Amino acid sequence: MALDTREIYVTALKNTHALEMQALQIMERQVERLTRYPEMEEALRRHIEETHGQRTRLEEALQSLGDSPSAIKEGILGFVGNMMALGHTPAQDEILKNTYANHAFENFEIAAYESLLTIGEAAGQGGSLTGFRQSLQEEEAMARRVRELIGPTTKRYVDLTIAGEKADR
Amino acid sequence: MALDTREIYVTALKNTHALEMQALQIMERQVERLTRYPEMEEALRRHIEETHGQRTRLEEALQSLGDSPSAIKEGILGFVGNMMALGHTPAQDEILKNTYANHAFENFEIAAYESLLTIGEAAGQGGSLTGFRQSLQEEEAMARRVRELIGPTTKRYVDLTIAGEKADR
Repeated sequence: MALDTREIYVTALKNTHALEMQALQIMERQVERLTRYPEMEEALRRHIEETHGQRTRLEEALQSLGDSPSAIKEGILGFVGNMMALGHTPAQDEILKNTYANHAFENFEIAAYESLLTIGEAAGQGGSLTGFRQSLQEEEAMARRVRELIGPTTKRYVDLTIAGEKADR
Repeated sequence: MALDTREIYVTALKNTHALEMQALQIMERQVERLTRYPEMEEALRRHIEETHGQRTRLEEALQSLGDSPSAIKEGILGFVGNMMALGHTPAQDEILKNTYANHAFENFEIAAYESLLTIGEAAGQGGSLTGFRQSLQEEEAMARRVRELIGPTTKRYVDLTIAGEKADR
């Protein structure tokens, strides 16, 4: 059975909503554990706030179509489950792996929003797209911020490690 | 026990090597399955070739330090295992999930190389870093290419789906 563009759009909205719910869990878990990397902690706290707004935009778009977020889609969870696992893996280099994973995760979200915008345009759903363009810009800004922090975070990890101090998170 | 910078660098080289080995598996699996998305197939084929060169650079750096790649590190595999699973999940929107995951994966690698360069500089390992800067540029180019393809790939997915044709890969 062929789907129509509206059905494809609703599925994309639900998948993106599930992704944002996972994003919140991953970031909240990390931020609780961070002690030695205050710039990363601040970036995560700011983006958690933004993510609540992104989630609301998706819920409003679903409501305007007479639908609502459903249980988390397995495909998305399959990807993200491991990111969550990374978020609380006790490892000497936990901060590095989380930083790489955060950079990957933001870029997963960037791709998901760019795709959602394409689907929304095909489905003639202009009304919600301004908000999703803002969400995309927020994800891009967070991806840039994480990337800026890769070098300084790695340098601090190396310095703390060779000093024999706590460096993991 | 405190580690020294050389030990941290060797660990980073081994982790990045494990990451590239996984990259090859993920891309080779996807590329075999792609039938309706020739631009993505071409991008993956080109990047598979580059990845062989990236892998060689890492092996040469390890050899120059009297070391060799070891078994795949669990931390990296934990992240990447799921990407692989995505690579052969039979789903109506397999191509979309793979595209998002490829964009995420390239950006995981970008973070890993940027971090490796920082560690290599701290360890005074200038000799290998020119090659790793090239690897980083290759990952950035592939990330850009995947991003360029998100819109056209999504559009083709929508068009094929509403026409009732095979759209998944």
